[in-house]
Amino acid sequence: MPRLELQYPNEPYSTVNRYGSTRARYDLETIHDIINKAPLLYVSFNDPSSPFPAVLPMIGQMGSFTHPSSDLGDVLDLYLHSYVSSRIINLCRTAPSSSSQGTEKGLPLTIAASHLTGLVLALTPNSHSYNYRSAVLFGHATLVTVPEEKLYAMELITNSVVPSRWAQTRVPPNAAELQSTSVLRVSIANGSAKIRSGMPHDDRGDLKNDEVLDRVWTGVVPVSQTLGEPVAGPYNRVAEVPGYIIEYVREANEEGVRVAEEAMVEVKVE
Amino acid sequence: MPRLELQYPNEPYSTVNRYGSTRARYDLETIHDIINKAPLLYVSFNDPSSPFPAVLPMIGQMGSFTHPSSDLGDVLDLYLHSYVSSRIINLCRTAPSSSSQGTEKGLPLTIAASHLTGLVLALTPNSHSYNYRSAVLFGHATLVTVPEEKLYAMELITNSVVPSRWAQTRVPPNAAELQSTSVLRVSIANGSAKIRSGMPHDDRGDLKNDEVLDRVWTGVVPVSQTLGEPVAGPYNRVAEVPGYIIEYVREANEEGVRVAEEAMVEVKVE
Repeated sequence: MPRLELQYPNEPYSTVNRYGSTRARYDLETIHDIINKAPLLYVSFNDPSSPFPAVLPMIGQMGSFTHPSSDLGDVLDLYLHSYVSSRIINLCRTAPSSSSQGTEKGLPLTIAASHLTGLVLALTPNSHSYNYRSAVLFGHATLVTVPEEKLYAMELITNSVVPSRWAQTRVPPNAAELQSTSVLRVSIANGSAKIRSGMPHDDRGDLKNDEVLDRVWTGVVPVSQTLGEPVAGPYNRVAEVPGYIIEYVREANEEGVRVAEEAMVEVKVE
Repeated sequence: MPRLELQYPNEPYSTVNRYGSTRARYDLETIHDIINKAPLLYVSFNDPSSPFPAVLPMIGQMGSFTHPSSDLGDVLDLYLHSYVSSRIINLCRTAPSSSSQGTEKGLPLTIAASHLTGLVLALTPNSHSYNYRSAVLFGHATLVTVPEEKLYAMELITNSVVPSRWAQTRVPPNAAELQSTSVLRVSIANGSAKIRSGMPHDDRGDLKNDEVLDRVWTGVVPVSQTLGEPVAGPYNRVAEVPGYIIEYVREANEEGVRVAEEAMVEVKVE
């Protein structure tokens, strides 16, 4: 029997309106995959002392401390880490234990991440676009206080930079390190993804215009992120770059190119 | 005489606290450069009907319609474009003509952008980091209503995808195209940048630990964005990829690698 595909609920604030029928995705697996593969997440929240919302680039990963073997498509929390006295941590510390809705405690956060996969060059400026995979999550952040959960999240986050890195470093963190780093657990209320794939689409009028068709090159320039050759630091004593780093560099680069190539083929949401 | 370097004012909401003395930058040129080179901007605002701030990935560019020959270090506006009936456009349309402070009209927006330039692998998880160039701008968005300014912004934004692309396409946009696209002008109130460069830094205790130093590889994996070979679309009739596209792909890739390499050398803020 096929496994049930979990979806985030459609609330007005989380619904993709423009091109929603072809580009929107609400299944947890797609959204969590985009978030976990993003090296940077853009985390937004309101600080009562500021006239503008705050947006911070942060490192984060989704996981489940209570069910560590969960799949990407399961209900997961988002873990973020930050310096102990940062503004977001201070706001979480003082966030009301229940929101105005009276149900969720913690600081309301919005988390966005995108992977740019192509420049879509069309006949007219208006039809220009990007191929991309983007996701947004909405949730409430509270400070992790259980030491085992904090270590679980720190390992998850370190291994998102380079897989298996945690176990290759000096661990566990000492008391001063644990004290200086705070970990936030974001309980996810909702989310959505928007994916653009395929080639340019132009309007019928332009597609009948020989002068324009004969003059304007149309197509896609694929875009990916590239990891370069690792460069040893000033106090490095390990003569050769370890295999797990070399392998990750190769795999990440191959996957980036593959995703950008696949993005040139249009995938319609069923 | 050296030209005066303009700086954004330090307000509590725009001040970089953590590592502020070594990583923060407030000069307009650095901040505007990071924003204009970012293919995606993360735009945050509050929608009274949502319990969470909104964050949208958008394309935007800084420029000056009144002084088009301005430099990056001059006072500039940020232009964003969007579909005419999108939520952000609707909110701008109904934004009060003066804020609660009574000075600035328009929808308060925060705009963030980052360039990841390296994975910084240290002896301990806590000392792991990224090399990056990130910027945040705060401002008030209003709809552009002057047709000439709208065209100026659309050209600026199209040419940020591929330089000179605008003039190579079917322009000017027709009445329907102009009607379906809205352009926002964000008047910038403040901003800051944060830049991390250099090699790993570990704590003294770990730097004296031979077992750790002999076992853990430390250094930087440079990161850059790569544009691949352009792929023609289904109705393309131009046999060869035009030179300005090939040249841009090459130049953008060379610059990405160069920036990631330069980022491995620590630059201290004077």
